Amino acid sequence: MMTNTDPFPVFPHRHLLGIKGLLPSDIETLLDRADAAVSLSRQSEKKRSVLRGRTQINLFFEASTRTQSSFELAGKRLGADVMNMSVASSSTKKGETLLDTATTLNAMRPDILVIRHSAAGAAALLAQKVGCSVVNAGDGAHEHPTQALLDALTIRRAKGAIAGLTVAICGDVLHSRVARSNIILLNALGARVRVIAPSTLMPSGVSQMSVEPFTSMEEGLKGADVVMMLRLQRERMSGSYVPSVREYFRFFGLDSERLKLAKEDALVMHPGPMNRGVEIASDVADGPQSVIQEQVEMGVAVRMAVLEALLDPRQAGETA
Amino acid sequence: MMTNTDPFPVFPHRHLLGIKGLLPSDIETLLDRADAAVSLSRQSEKKRSVLRGRTQINLFFEASTRTQSSFELAGKRLGADVMNMSVASSSTKKGETLLDTATTLNAMRPDILVIRHSAAGAAALLAQKVGCSVVNAGDGAHEHPTQALLDALTIRRAKGAIAGLTVAICGDVLHSRVARSNIILLNALGARVRVIAPSTLMPSGVSQMSVEPFTSMEEGLKGADVVMMLRLQRERMSGSYVPSVREYFRFFGLDSERLKLAKEDALVMHPGPMNRGVEIASDVADGPQSVIQEQVEMGVAVRMAVLEALLDPRQAGETA
Amino acid sequence: MMTNTDPFPVFPHRHLLGIKGLLPSDIETLLDRADAAVSLSRQSEKKRSVLRGRTQINLFFEASTRTQSSFELAGKRLGADVMNMSVASSSTKKGETLLDTATTLNAMRPDILVIRHSAAGAAALLAQKVGCSVVNAGDGAHEHPTQALLDALTIRRAKGAIAGLTVAICGDVLHSRVARSNIILLNALGARVRVIAPSTLMPSGVSQMSVEPFTSMEEGLKGADVVMMLRLQRERMSGSYVPSVREYFRFFGLDSERLKLAKEDALVMHPGPMNRGVEIASDVADGPQSVIQEQVEMGVAVRMAVLEALLDPRQAGETA
Repeated sequence: MMTNTDPFPVFPHRHLLGIKGLLPSDIETLLDRADAAVSLSRQSEKKRSVLRGRTQINLFFEASTRTQSSFELAGKRLGADVMNMSVASSSTKKGETLLDTATTLNAMRPDILVIRHSAAGAAALLAQKVGCSVVNAGDGAHEHPTQALLDALTIRRAKGAIAGLTVAICGDVLHSRVARSNIILLNALGARVRVIAPSTLMPSGVSQMSVEPFTSMEEGLKGADVVMMLRLQRERMSGSYVPSVREYFRFFGLDSERLKLAKEDALVMHPGPMNRGVEIASDVADGPQSVIQEQVEMGVAVRMAVLEALLDPRQAGETA
Repeated sequence: MMTNTDPFPVFPHRHLLGIKGLLPSDIETLLDRADAAVSLSRQSEKKRSVLRGRTQINLFFEASTRTQSSFELAGKRLGADVMNMSVASSSTKKGETLLDTATTLNAMRPDILVIRHSAAGAAALLAQKVGCSVVNAGDGAHEHPTQALLDALTIRRAKGAIAGLTVAICGDVLHSRVARSNIILLNALGARVRVIAPSTLMPSGVSQMSVEPFTSMEEGLKGADVVMMLRLQRERMSGSYVPSVREYFRFFGLDSERLKLAKEDALVMHPGPMNRGVEIASDVADGPQSVIQEQVEMGVAVRMAVLEALLDPRQAGETA
Repeated sequence: MMTNTDPFPVFPHRHLLGIKGLLPSDIETLLDRADAAVSLSRQSEKKRSVLRGRTQINLFFEASTRTQSSFELAGKRLGADVMNMSVASSSTKKGETLLDTATTLNAMRPDILVIRHSAAGAAALLAQKVGCSVVNAGDGAHEHPTQALLDALTIRRAKGAIAGLTVAICGDVLHSRVARSNIILLNALGARVRVIAPSTLMPSGVSQMSVEPFTSMEEGLKGADVVMMLRLQRERMSGSYVPSVREYFRFFGLDSERLKLAKEDALVMHPGPMNRGVEIASDVADGPQSVIQEQVEMGVAVRMAVLEALLDPRQAGETA
């Protein structure tokens, strides 16, 4: 059992819209709670009733196996009633706007709304319009805060701490909300962050981002403690130069040779779903340095921590 | 908590197929129960266990965000196990008939089957073939009883009572099961009902319907206590005259000027999803007289009341 | 209530990948448990908490109304948290492999993974890669063990025992995992098994299958205790000879005339969904000898028995 008696510091937020705006202590609070949730999920009886009677709605305008599943299991393991709404089954086809859909759902009195949408700022917009807590599960190329939290938890459990580590984020940085949220979080916790990308996939504002930019994998990987690969998102590259997968792998794919440039015990990470043979070689993805499956496990735990923190009974003056 | 000790009169029906056939006392019983369910859903612990161990199947042959969600949350908040079946994931593609699908589900021993189908009479047909309670969630252009109930609950809570009010139902009356169910219910409870529609969207049998028909918004809105807009269902207008949206809004859209013709405190209602700028102007939809969001909230409450009434433990001689 | 104190023999398997490999005593154990589950599902309170806190994931790469629903209700009635993943909403579109999807889900710490896939051996492959129990819900033309178990339960309840009965399996045997699993099970429990199929739909290895093959319905049905029809799976007949439905029904459809050739009290079975008028006449499907709806009911019960047996608390040294 998660120990309810542990004196967690109070997480003071009503929404989780991004990593930006969180204090390092907020992040550490969430990671501490998530550590306890990992233990719970490893038991055969993996359910608590802390969110019993609460309603969680997962509103996904972009399909996602792992993120939606992760939030669904997180909510169910805390005893919440979870309802999934995906674009395919929603009435946006009938001409209803995003905001009408969200205010309609809000009128059904959910306690928490988890939203994924292709537009940056969608979650923040909703948070102004609804009466419940909002969790951003990815908004365009803006933020994906629970991904950054689960990445941090994975690193912290493997390395003990994040401060002082050198983390290389590699690949399609330009289109990646994962990269963006991770850059903010890792800086907040004192890591040194590098980004490695072809110049066409390097954000123009990289010089303001508190990162060291590299356009060569060979240079950027040297001495890294963590190698965080990104998915090549060819579907978002409308109009601009789209590299062939063969060409991309040749220069920016992570294979076992390139991995040797990082520290011997460097972690290999990927947010999934992987394009094997495009941004990462299969033997590296499945190799001894890979913590990709751990990331998925930490995902459920982090989401449990977030849901519980946002609906913390102690804040509302109720008893668990 | 909803108070189980309140002496609700017993609701004597096994199915809810339409408003037709309900006595005024049946309707008032359901609205009284729904009032209690509103209070429950406004709490953070919004769950009861009255339907624990019961199985509810939502069988939707037409997609619907709000109706299916509303029934799903209603069942979950009463503790039922809820399973959704939508057309997309059903085996009707493999050539299975509606009736085979329903009798198959029936063999899985559900306690309640909520059905939406494009054919009028589909719910009544199923009710003859299955051993469980059936709730009609919309059958073609026939009836949509829970919509009429939630509309009545919304009006009753805002106005105190329904008897004596003048309600104007406006728009595509011809294709609307919402209009049909509302006309029956509002008449049963003693309201004066007007319908306002272009002549091409006015049902041919309107003279037998206990309503005052109008083909002019200006005339029909005068002195109304409630203005109930309908969705323009262009997708159902095969073959016949289909108005352009601009033309439709010009003559039959509800804007703030037209709304002034109704009583000063007239309610503005819409079953959703709205076509903003087609049948209703955005400022009216979001304005102070609008109770459109309340309707959605009342929807969950009414469905809780219906589910509980159909499966009332006191009827089966069991204890809650 | 199912009586937990009944001394069921212990079911020693962690996975259910096929009927092949099960001992007759394993099968009887499951059928005994399923008998108890039937009683439970016929009550209004049809829920136990034996799997409370367990996570069940239904991973369906092929759509199926009845099988997925059946597993979903089975899990929910035992108190498990059930999550459905269908191909449509999965990220296999994004290029993720079957194995990546499964290992991702596995990392979320489910207790049981129910899988349907078009490739023979998919379930067995997963069982080697994941840490939880795997149930095969149909893998290509290989096996569909819970279907064979529910068929056996239906027969046993109607006839008292299976040993000594003559069972005729009729139709598209070549493409049928249902036929394959049933042949193995029925032989294990001592039935005499016939298969009746056009020569183009008869498996080439039929002589090694412990069955009597017939290419004439008239011959094969004579004196049968059970007539088990199969769905004509025209969608799987790529390249080869595809019979017209009229021609097929004429020679291999089960109508009331042909049924008279079997024993007077012969059972008529079909795994569903039926092609009425193709492999079976409607009056036979709905007639007094048909146990097709019973099969569906037994399906939920058998799946409850399987889930409980695989996660039997007594094996893990826990208390219920």
